[in-house]
Formats: sequence, C-alpha cells, structure tokens
Amino acid sequence: MLYEIHEKVMKLEREGRKIVKLNIGDPDQETPREIVETAYDALRKGKTKYSSGAGEMKLREALASVHDVSPDQVVITPGSKWAVFAIMHLLLKNGGNVIIPTPHWTAYELIAKDLGVEVRFLRTELDSDWQINIEELSKLIDGQTKLLILCNPSNPTSVALRERNLEEIISTVDERFTILSDEVYSDISFVGTKSILDFDGDNALVKSFSKTFAMTGWRIGYSVTSRELAEKIVKLNFMSVTNVPVFIQEAALKALELRVQIAERMREEYRRRADVACRYLSKTRLRFAKPDAPFYVFPKYDNLDSERFALDLLDQGVAVTPGTSFGDYREYFRIALTLPEQEISRGLDRICHGIEESL
Amino acid sequence: MLYEIHEKVMKLEREGRKIVKLNIGDPDQETPREIVETAYDALRKGKTKYSSGAGEMKLREALASVHDVSPDQVVITPGSKWAVFAIMHLLLKNGGNVIIPTPHWTAYELIAKDLGVEVRFLRTELDSDWQINIEELSKLIDGQTKLLILCNPSNPTSVALRERNLEEIISTVDERFTILSDEVYSDISFVGTKSILDFDGDNALVKSFSKTFAMTGWRIGYSVTSRELAEKIVKLNFMSVTNVPVFIQEAALKALELRVQIAERMREEYRRRADVACRYLSKTRLRFAKPDAPFYVFPKYDNLDSERFALDLLDQGVAVTPGTSFGDYREYFRIALTLPEQEISRGLDRICHGIEESL
Repeated sequence: MLYEIHEKVMKLEREGRKIVKLNIGDPDQETPREIVETAYDALRKGKTKYSSGAGEMKLREALASVHDVSPDQVVITPGSKWAVFAIMHLLLKNGGNVIIPTPHWTAYELIAKDLGVEVRFLRTELDSDWQINIEELSKLIDGQTKLLILCNPSNPTSVALRERNLEEIISTVDERFTILSDEVYSDISFVGTKSILDFDGDNALVKSFSKTFAMTGWRIGYSVTSRELAEKIVKLNFMSVTNVPVFIQEAALKALELRVQIAERMREEYRRRADVACRYLSKTRLRFAKPDAPFYVFPKYDNLDSERFALDLLDQGVAVTPGTSFGDYREYFRIALTLPEQEISRGLDRICHGIEESL
Repeated sequence: MLYEIHEKVMKLEREGRKIVKLNIGDPDQETPREIVETAYDALRKGKTKYSSGAGEMKLREALASVHDVSPDQVVITPGSKWAVFAIMHLLLKNGGNVIIPTPHWTAYELIAKDLGVEVRFLRTELDSDWQINIEELSKLIDGQTKLLILCNPSNPTSVALRERNLEEIISTVDERFTILSDEVYSDISFVGTKSILDFDGDNALVKSFSKTFAMTGWRIGYSVTSRELAEKIVKLNFMSVTNVPVFIQEAALKALELRVQIAERMREEYRRRADVACRYLSKTRLRFAKPDAPFYVFPKYDNLDSERFALDLLDQGVAVTPGTSFGDYREYFRIALTLPEQEISRGLDRICHGIEESL
C-alpha cells in the first residue's frame, strides 16, 4: 500500500491540499551546496561520456579505503536498490530461495517476485526488540538457500541488530550462502552499529549516498562483495544501466570528503526529530521500539487496521504508511521523520488524536 | 571482443600511448552548453529528490507530442539500453524466444544470455544491402516467439531498413508478438527513415538522448510502448533503478526544445565524416554499404581475420572493433566516426595501409 498512499498524496497535492508527508523516506534537506557545485564543475569539464560499468576508480578507491577492502570489490550502482536487484538476480537466476526477515523494506519482496524467486519470510517481533530468532532462521535454511537479506539498521523499524545477534546469524549461516546487508542508514545511526564487513566471509554490503547526503534523487549507491560477484555486477551494469553518470560520481566523491561533518549534522537533526516523536508517542497507548537510527518509527496499536487508519489519516492531511506494506503487520504503521520538527509535531499531534478516535 | 579492445585501449592510454579511437560510439562533441546549464539550474532548485518511475510528466508529454502518442505510453529510462533490458525481461521471463537480426548491437545478445532467453539469429548480408530476408524471418518464427528486435538505422552497419522491407516485416509478424525497434540514430540519419510507430500494432520503440545530443554519459533514454507494457516497465523501474534524476530529465527537456538545430548540426558533421570515410575506403578493396546514418562504417575484406587485424592495428595506434563482436562476421570490422575529421583521416590512412599489408 506504500505505492497507493504515495500516489494518493501526489493526487491530493495536485488538487491543492497541503499534506504532512510522513510516508516516505526522502529527506527534506537539500543536497549540500558543495556537492551540487562539484557536479556542475564536472559537467562543465565535459564529464558526460560513457564510462566504466564498475564506476570511477577514484571513487572506488575512496570507498575501498572507508571499508578497508580492495577497490575491485566495490561497484558503483544507480542507487543501492539496483545493487540489491543485481545481486538477487545474479545469485538466484538459476533457482534457489532467499530469506527475508520481516518487517522488510518493500523493494526486497517486489524484486524477488519480479525475478520469480522463492521468498522465505522470517518474522521478527517488537517484543523481541526486532532481533532475529536464530532457531527460526535455522529452520528456514536448506540446501537451496542462496541469500539472506539483512536491513541493518532496519527500514521500517529503525532498530539495529545487536552485535551478539549478528554474530549468531553469521555463525548459523556458516558461509553456506551469501548474506546481503543493506546498511544505508548506518552512517547516520544514533548508536554504533556493526557492519557485515566487520566479520569474515564472502558476504555483500550495499550502501547509498541517498540518506547520509540527502541525495536520494541522484541515484547513486554501491556494493562491496567478493571479487567474483563484483565482476558479475559490472557485467550486468555494462549490459543494462551502463554506468552512473561520471559527474554524479564526482559529486559523490566530494560528499565522501565531507562525510564526517555532513553525517554528524544529519545525525543530530534526526536524533532531535526521533526524540520529539518518542515524546509524543509515549503519551499514547502505542507501543514501539526506540529508534537506533533515522528515519522511522514503527509503532503498534493492538487491533488497529492500519490500512483504514492510514486512509482516514490522509483525509485529515497526514500521510503514514500502513504496516502491511512491510509484511504481515496490520497493527503497525510507519512514520518517516523526513520533515522539519514543526511539521513532524503537527503530524504526530494528528496521529495521536487519530489513534484515540480509532478506538 | 568489443569489451576486450575497449579495455586494451584504456590500458594503452594509461601507459601514455595516443590511440585513434574508432572503436566506440561515443561522440567526441561536448553536450551543448544550454543543456548543461539547465541541469545546473535544476540542481540548484533542489530537483534532487525521488521521483516517478515513469519519468517527469513534462518530459513524457513533450515526447508524446514528438511521437504522436499518449504520455502514458512513454517511460523515461536510464539509457535506451535499460529500456531494451526491461522489455526483454518483461516479455520473456516466462519463456519464449527472441529473434535478433545480425550483425547486431552487442548488448542485445548479452542481455538475452544474461536473462537465459533463447535467441534466434537472423543473418543479413552486405550483398542484400543489410535488408531482412522475409523468408528467413518466417522460418524462425514459431508459437514461442515473443520478440523481434530491429536496430534501425543499424549499429554496426549504419544502414536503414527500406520502407518496403519494414512493411514486409510487420506484415509477416502480423501482430503475433512485439517488434522492438531501437531507433537511437534516426534523428541524425542522413536519409529519411520510417519509425515502427508509423505502422499499426502494439510495437515498441526505444530511443535515447545519447547520440543526437552528445549525452551518452548522462544515461537517459525512453520507451514508447502499449500502455500495458509501459505500466510494467514503470513497476520494474520502481523496484530497480527508481527514476532517472529529475535534473537530468530537465536537461533532456531542454535538449528536446533545441532538437531541430542540434540534430541538424550533428547530422551535417557526421555526413562530412562519413563522406571522408567512404572516399578513403573506396580506394581499397574493402567492400561496404554507404552509411544512411551515423556513426559507423562496416567494411568487409575477403578472408580477413578481423580479430587479428584489430589487435595488429591497435599496436599501430588505431582502434576498431572486429566484426565478430556483432555476430558471425569475421571478415568485417566496424569503424566508429566519433572523432574530428582530421583524426578520422589519420586513422583511415592507417586502416587502409594495414589492410593492404594484411594480404
């Protein structure tokens, strides 16, 4: 229903309605000016030609240094979503199944369905602080399992996997197949998080410039994988998307140079917003995990029909996404804190009243 | 071997060698300044957010008006190659075969192989002016045929399908499956060409801003299809590449506004280059079809081993692509006229001497 709400919001806006959009993870901030100017410089220097399907070596080297890997393990992609699509396609095109913990980012399931891949959902619970149940994971794995996808910190819960949980997951998988860890929120996380690359094994990381640098619409992300898988992704890029525009890659390189200060600024902004949200929600009978990272809160209200709730709320000018967009979580809904504090307060006020009325 | 030559050229250049690169179809011209400035304006206006998987309505409307179709038949894609990938994936994921006339653009075969799709090659010949043999086409079609890909005008031959040939193809296919017509060279063609959209039927067009506007590295193209297929492409975009950056779409819209004068300038430039090439090649025993369009000439020399020839020529500082990159055409090679006239002359001089020496 993510898409349906999104389309309905755009329709209402075209009709002149003002909507408090807490439904999508697109930061309200502008891309920092230095990044924009770098793109323009590159454009003026004629960096508008075909380039490598792997990405520019300068950017790959910079990312390799961030992650302490070899540059030939890094592939630049038009968004981290494309990296997920590519890896799922490449690892599962000859059959097999993928394990996806729920609640999950909508795209994972859409991609798997499009590729005709068998999905095994692994339910996680608010009451277990959204950590992965190792026994349940073990039960889902068989000889045909080719991939486990982690979203860490998670969209939609904003909860990170504890180090101990991650260790158990890795030891359970025991290098029998690839773990794909989507860590697009980790650089602006409020707590220290562990990356899949901190552990041994031929696992895969995908990351993005979208969230940390407010660059969602630029479409640039990357993967860090085994050399063998990286080569396959490069070949797939070469025959499909070709390359991320070089002027966008130069802008991303500038972003990387500024990442410490930009990430710090973003993190503090989102921490304030998360605090505001927690304060509001704590006054209601909603239950939720305190976010470890931007941008979301994923509260639960017993017996709520979140689809009806989201539609009613939209009529009152506030957009959220029902939990059913992320799996079998009808009593939950996702609030994206991607608006200035004042608007978030306005939206939360409406949400909290709405919840009481929905009784 | 297209890729191998390309990589070798880049390696030689890193070693300080100067190579006359007649091997790839990347125009030497800069993207026109007005287009660059429009992208910058859009960047400064914050057009850096997520957007529609279908593309911006303004651009879709402008393209719909160019092609006299409805905007909801137009989908903006990160390059026309992605549109080909998407259409092949969507139409063939449940099985079937695709017919690809040869010599063919390398990507068609790579995509089909990657998707595990059965390819049926349809050989065309220099002696038949690279037109399609209708009897042979008929023989290849069966109940499992889901797609025929035309490249018109063709890469690598630069020959256009005559109107009569196109009519025969369409009547042979008889709406039993989709014809995908890749017409990325048509706007700068030296002769009038017919588009697949000039004929009835639910066929598909893919086009690009790359060649006409020297925008290869910007990665923007589009498809025009039935509404039903367009919707499927939009969904696939949404779960993979998301959207072409809006600032790039705005630049493309500016390009469209200027298209008459830019296309005219490009066409004349490439016509001069093609004339130079034809003059040189006519003095040798090479045989070739006079190009109807940019950027290529695809000459034949009886008993030539074009792979060895291309490697020897590269040692002498000139890069061309052997015919084997486009199918079973070992006696042929492709010359891309994507350099200034003087360099083309220098390269052709070397090629003509090389051919005589290869005897």
